[in-house]
Amino acid sequence: MGWIDEEHQGVRYGLSGDVLVEERSPFQRISVICSERYGKGLLLDGCWMTAEHQERHYHEPLVHPALCTAQSIERVLIIGGGDGGTARECLRHTDVTHLDMVEIDGRVVELSRTHLPMIGGSAWSDPRFHLTIGDGIAWVSDSAEQSYDVVLVDGSDPAGPAVGLFNRTFFEQCRRILRPGGVFATQSESPEAFRAVHVAIVRLLREVFGHADPLYGWVPMYPSGWWSWTFAAVDGPRYKSPISPRAALIQHDCQIWSPRWQRGGFDAIPYSIELELQNE
Amino acid sequence: MGWIDEEHQGVRYGLSGDVLVEERSPFQRISVICSERYGKGLLLDGCWMTAEHQERHYHEPLVHPALCTAQSIERVLIIGGGDGGTARECLRHTDVTHLDMVEIDGRVVELSRTHLPMIGGSAWSDPRFHLTIGDGIAWVSDSAEQSYDVVLVDGSDPAGPAVGLFNRTFFEQCRRILRPGGVFATQSESPEAFRAVHVAIVRLLREVFGHADPLYGWVPMYPSGWWSWTFAAVDGPRYKSPISPRAALIQHDCQIWSPRWQRGGFDAIPYSIELELQNE
Repeated sequence: MGWIDEEHQGVRYGLSGDVLVEERSPFQRISVICSERYGKGLLLDGCWMTAEHQERHYHEPLVHPALCTAQSIERVLIIGGGDGGTARECLRHTDVTHLDMVEIDGRVVELSRTHLPMIGGSAWSDPRFHLTIGDGIAWVSDSAEQSYDVVLVDGSDPAGPAVGLFNRTFFEQCRRILRPGGVFATQSESPEAFRAVHVAIVRLLREVFGHADPLYGWVPMYPSGWWSWTFAAVDGPRYKSPISPRAALIQHDCQIWSPRWQRGGFDAIPYSIELELQNE
Repeated sequence: MGWIDEEHQGVRYGLSGDVLVEERSPFQRISVICSERYGKGLLLDGCWMTAEHQERHYHEPLVHPALCTAQSIERVLIIGGGDGGTARECLRHTDVTHLDMVEIDGRVVELSRTHLPMIGGSAWSDPRFHLTIGDGIAWVSDSAEQSYDVVLVDGSDPAGPAVGLFNRTFFEQCRRILRPGGVFATQSESPEAFRAVHVAIVRLLREVFGHADPLYGWVPMYPSGWWSWTFAAVDGPRYKSPISPRAALIQHDCQIWSPRWQRGGFDAIPYSIELELQNE
């Protein structure tokens, strides 16, 4: 047992545990660890991504505010999401009939399926689930106009392989492939540890989609523990209003998310960030 | 420069910096450090308490939901709060005419005034501020019935000198000294790192006061980064409804708190904790 730490700006967050796998894929350094507190976990380029007993803090807030509010949720696209947790939460929605997931790094999927099988759960064998190992940015560009009800971006920080997932061209392409009544969502970093990037993402999404709002929650293993996801739509802030029957089907198996929690997460914007977003 | 860490349940949170003071008072081990990321900071018994550039994450959520909602706020009592941040935020409310603060450890006050003077700010010299070094539990027992409008408990974890601040007898005494229309507030630990303690505090406050609700926020340096404060009142959940003119006077100088943020913090209860609190 030793400490496995992520360091960021003079702060470190560490878990006591053992490193099970450490390898370099063509895209990044991948580490699988086994921790005392949160079970098995995954790091990419030394940054905490997920762990068995903490992953719901991240996946529920990304998925359910989008899938409970889009007009229809038949066709869903995930960019990234190699550990399978986002796919698993999407497939709990029985109205989803086709889920595409495009992950750039096949080794992340292989190592997750081998070492963290409980995170993807039954998603990997669900007939509605279609996995492509490839470039998500190209996938979006090549997709037909209005071909998805929901687009979820589940990428790492805007550095390395994920850098292209946070710019105007990519967001415009995501808007193009969304059907009317659709919802776009992306993780949008910490309002504390990555404040400038966070504010820039929200601003850009507002420009591109017309409506976008950050939702705040907690992922203890990410820098500052305070995290955000930003939701966008063309036809108004529909991502704020869960559709009751769909929410009722999902809520009972959630640890974090509920329609009430979601309302709280959108309201819990720190006052200084609210002001900064108003002064555009 | 080295790492100064707090370890808790196989997790550690560390800041890169230097230790300036380390001494043992009759009550606890006190450390003052200077960190790269958050400036000067304070630890008690090796647990992070506060730091110059992070203290507002803790003090604004403890103070303003109580002081913006109590019927009157002339007489306020703080138990603990030795760094001075809670007193500073209270004294921003011009309706406060008398603020008692009872801190058990005089060395915490002395070291905070010397090394962290910006946290207490002008509180230390404010004529409305009355500091007593002594036992807060005895102070509450000895206080006259209905003698305070607001009682704030700003103590450390329920271990060491703070252990008596989280039991029925103490809460009953706090209720006794509150005036009609008054509000009680206490820090109530992390719903993640101290889940059982957190739930127990909320339950006990509901039993003693009749109305109590947790509010969720973020203090990156505390275990899990995810923190809570619980508010209680006898005459209904008045702590949920800020009085507009009082809130307007305070909000403009806040980094975190606003009436909207407060509403969000009360709603952002994780679903599994909401269920656990319903099954009493």
